Amino acid sequence: MLDDMNPGRVQKAPENFLDREGIHRAAREAREGRRDFIRAAFASAAAAVGGAALAAQPAGKGDPAILELPEHSRGLGQPVALEGYGKPSKHEANVQRRRSPGLTQTTQASVSFAPLQSLFGIVTPSGLHFERHHQGWWDIDPSRHRLMINGMVKASKVFTMDELMRLPSVSRFHFIECGANTGMEWGNVAVPTCQYTHGMLSCSEFTGVPLVTLLEMAGADFKKGRFLLAEGADGSSMTRTIPMSLVESGEVLVAYGQNGEMLRPEQGYPLRLVVPGVQGVSWVKYLRRIEVGDQPYGTKDESVHYVDLLPDGTHRQYTSIQECKSVVTTPSGGQMLLDKGFYSISGLAWSGRGKVTRVDVSVDGGRNWREARLQGPVMSKCLTRFSLDWDWDGKPALVQSRATDETGYVQPSYRELRAVRGTRSIYHNNAIQSWMVEESGEVKNVQLG
Amino acid sequence: MLDDMNPGRVQKAPENFLDREGIHRAAREAREGRRDFIRAAFASAAAAVGGAALAAQPAGKGDPAILELPEHSRGLGQPVALEGYGKPSKHEANVQRRRSPGLTQTTQASVSFAPLQSLFGIVTPSGLHFERHHQGWWDIDPSRHRLMINGMVKASKVFTMDELMRLPSVSRFHFIECGANTGMEWGNVAVPTCQYTHGMLSCSEFTGVPLVTLLEMAGADFKKGRFLLAEGADGSSMTRTIPMSLVESGEVLVAYGQNGEMLRPEQGYPLRLVVPGVQGVSWVKYLRRIEVGDQPYGTKDESVHYVDLLPDGTHRQYTSIQECKSVVTTPSGGQMLLDKGFYSISGLAWSGRGKVTRVDVSVDGGRNWREARLQGPVMSKCLTRFSLDWDWDGKPALVQSRATDETGYVQPSYRELRAVRGTRSIYHNNAIQSWMVEESGEVKNVQLG
Repeated sequence: MLDDMNPGRVQKAPENFLDREGIHRAAREAREGRRDFIRAAFASAAAAVGGAALAAQPAGKGDPAILELPEHSRGLGQPVALEGYGKPSKHEANVQRRRSPGLTQTTQASVSFAPLQSLFGIVTPSGLHFERHHQGWWDIDPSRHRLMINGMVKASKVFTMDELMRLPSVSRFHFIECGANTGMEWGNVAVPTCQYTHGMLSCSEFTGVPLVTLLEMAGADFKKGRFLLAEGADGSSMTRTIPMSLVESGEVLVAYGQNGEMLRPEQGYPLRLVVPGVQGVSWVKYLRRIEVGDQPYGTKDESVHYVDLLPDGTHRQYTSIQECKSVVTTPSGGQMLLDKGFYSISGLAWSGRGKVTRVDVSVDGGRNWREARLQGPVMSKCLTRFSLDWDWDGKPALVQSRATDETGYVQPSYRELRAVRGTRSIYHNNAIQSWMVEESGEVKNVQLG
Repeated sequence: MLDDMNPGRVQKAPENFLDREGIHRAAREAREGRRDFIRAAFASAAAAVGGAALAAQPAGKGDPAILELPEHSRGLGQPVALEGYGKPSKHEANVQRRRSPGLTQTTQASVSFAPLQSLFGIVTPSGLHFERHHQGWWDIDPSRHRLMINGMVKASKVFTMDELMRLPSVSRFHFIECGANTGMEWGNVAVPTCQYTHGMLSCSEFTGVPLVTLLEMAGADFKKGRFLLAEGADGSSMTRTIPMSLVESGEVLVAYGQNGEMLRPEQGYPLRLVVPGVQGVSWVKYLRRIEVGDQPYGTKDESVHYVDLLPDGTHRQYTSIQECKSVVTTPSGGQMLLDKGFYSISGLAWSGRGKVTRVDVSVDGGRNWREARLQGPVMSKCLTRFSLDWDWDGKPALVQSRATDETGYVQPSYRELRAVRGTRSIYHNNAIQSWMVEESGEVKNVQLG
């Protein structure tokens, strides 16, 4: 998707990703006992806001205020239903999805990244879900929205939202990853935080109607009609070919629900396609039409965009499955370890081909590996949280994770990936990520050859 | 928890729960083809807001506007990261947690209910999580918050949030239900919607440190110290006894994460106890202290409140496990079925004793039952979504669900429950709920003896 960005500009390190000074100031105050460096290992990864927010209420040793009962233990608090729809704590204002400074020329054909370094478990709060729009987002009136099924069918059908929502639905947890996630790393840019290296990744419980149900209702020709065109209603007229083989399994959903409520406008409200394991661009938002056809459609969004430039100058097309991948989110770039001692290394692993079966973690740049714990339930084409105990001796360390999926596929190193794919791609980078922990405790993104 | 409410007043049907006129108006317009009755079966359950919102943009047959390309297919939409933390669609403004009118005398010692009738899957969006506060909620500064472990331990310990968050954590999906959920139904009140009958129920992915880890660090006396006191930092000084046996399994968490992000202030930010399967009051919010002791503490919140008045005039105390229970959320009270034909009956089942193994659904008031589909993954002490196909013939129907858990326990009827417990309780009502679908399509709460 990052085709809006000028590849020439990407080679220089992006600016303003990180308020390094703010982090150092907060760490210094914490070490001096003037404040609890809240979420130490988790320190603000884009701290321009965070520095200020974190420093707002210095407290701790020697502060007479701490000897008194705090106001919240004496007073009357806020009422129930103060807001019919609640919000995060004001102390979490720094946990935001963020646009990458200078990455795209407009903010409508652009992307915002989920703050992976601040998240727990596998569910991405819908308010922090990454965004990728080709022509901006809309809040479409669902009472006027329609979905058409046409092409190689007995009778074209048009569904209202009412009609769709009366049909049998399923709910499933799946990750969605933009094909361009980690795209800046192809060129050795080493974007400083995992929000920017891996944050075009989110995971939700999706609810919707299996697309195969709608195709059956329209009398689709499953024998000849081996391809589907999915079309969105927004101005970008996003169109993608979906192989019928994916749909027949029942996995592909026409979804209206996400994490218990209706889809968010930025995620395609009121209707989006959910294509588990496949790159995000195929999860067509504002879905208005599915056409059944007998060959791939070769749309602009798949023949020109979302293709991989290979070392021999040709393009690899129609590569849409997101291969097995993982990233350590704690510790990760932009964070700071305050002192040596125990840490719980934690991260996310996923595969577009099924379940993650194993994650190994190295703290010495891949010389030695230890098997991490996987947090259940481990679900197919879903994020899996892993963790590993680590006693940091205060010396420089190189932290990596390497995931394996149920097909036996093992996440490659940059060396292995580049041997096949070169360095000029934008999409489909699933290489092992390396974070350097320096003696100062500062964590930086480094690329090993 | 509803001890703030005057039991005498509960016997009359609450007012303002439902804008019945608004629902009828919207249904009439939909039948006349003037609008898509969005979420027909899901129609607004508290429609004062909804009526207006739904009627805002009439469209459909004969409307010339629909023949033009809508603005969202022509124009440039909203930019990425317009808000660092996103919000639901403006068309979903009616989906709110709501205070029950007149139920409590103050809004700080009160409750708001989750809109179960509008939710999908099992995850409750944190913004719609039910609330129960005893003295209002607070947004506590986490850099000043502390957790003390004391009592029968080798050395008392005080943890900062930093220290807690460096420890190994786990993430698990669990339901939380207020012991008073469905409390108004004891007295045959028949509150009109499932938001008010069952909405003191939510489900999240919680992340935190197993409490047993902290007890081990403090050198707790696990042999003699068979009980724990959990204490909150807010003005209500909520205190509850937790049996050590529950904690030793590793299930009880000192949690800071909920659905991927930090706890919400209304849910105890920055720290709450998670006691899977046990009523919500034991999930102490703003957790500041755990004391290890050798006998139950008999606190005000467990000896006087949260007890069950039995027919013989005695109180049943220390009953904290939430027994197996279920409720149909679609169709449910306050909704309206626009016409006969196919519907997908859907609902939620849960058990404080483990996994739900089976849900049966009846549409004739319990004379005949059919087994519902359970949506996986089915997790222990977690909500399970069930569904069943139903072809409504347009005649009056009585819709019920009956859950069974892995212990073999079967959710009781009101007749069975009242034979043992009488009708004067507030807490621990897990009886089978009945929704009457009238010929008009209107769905009402009725109680079968």
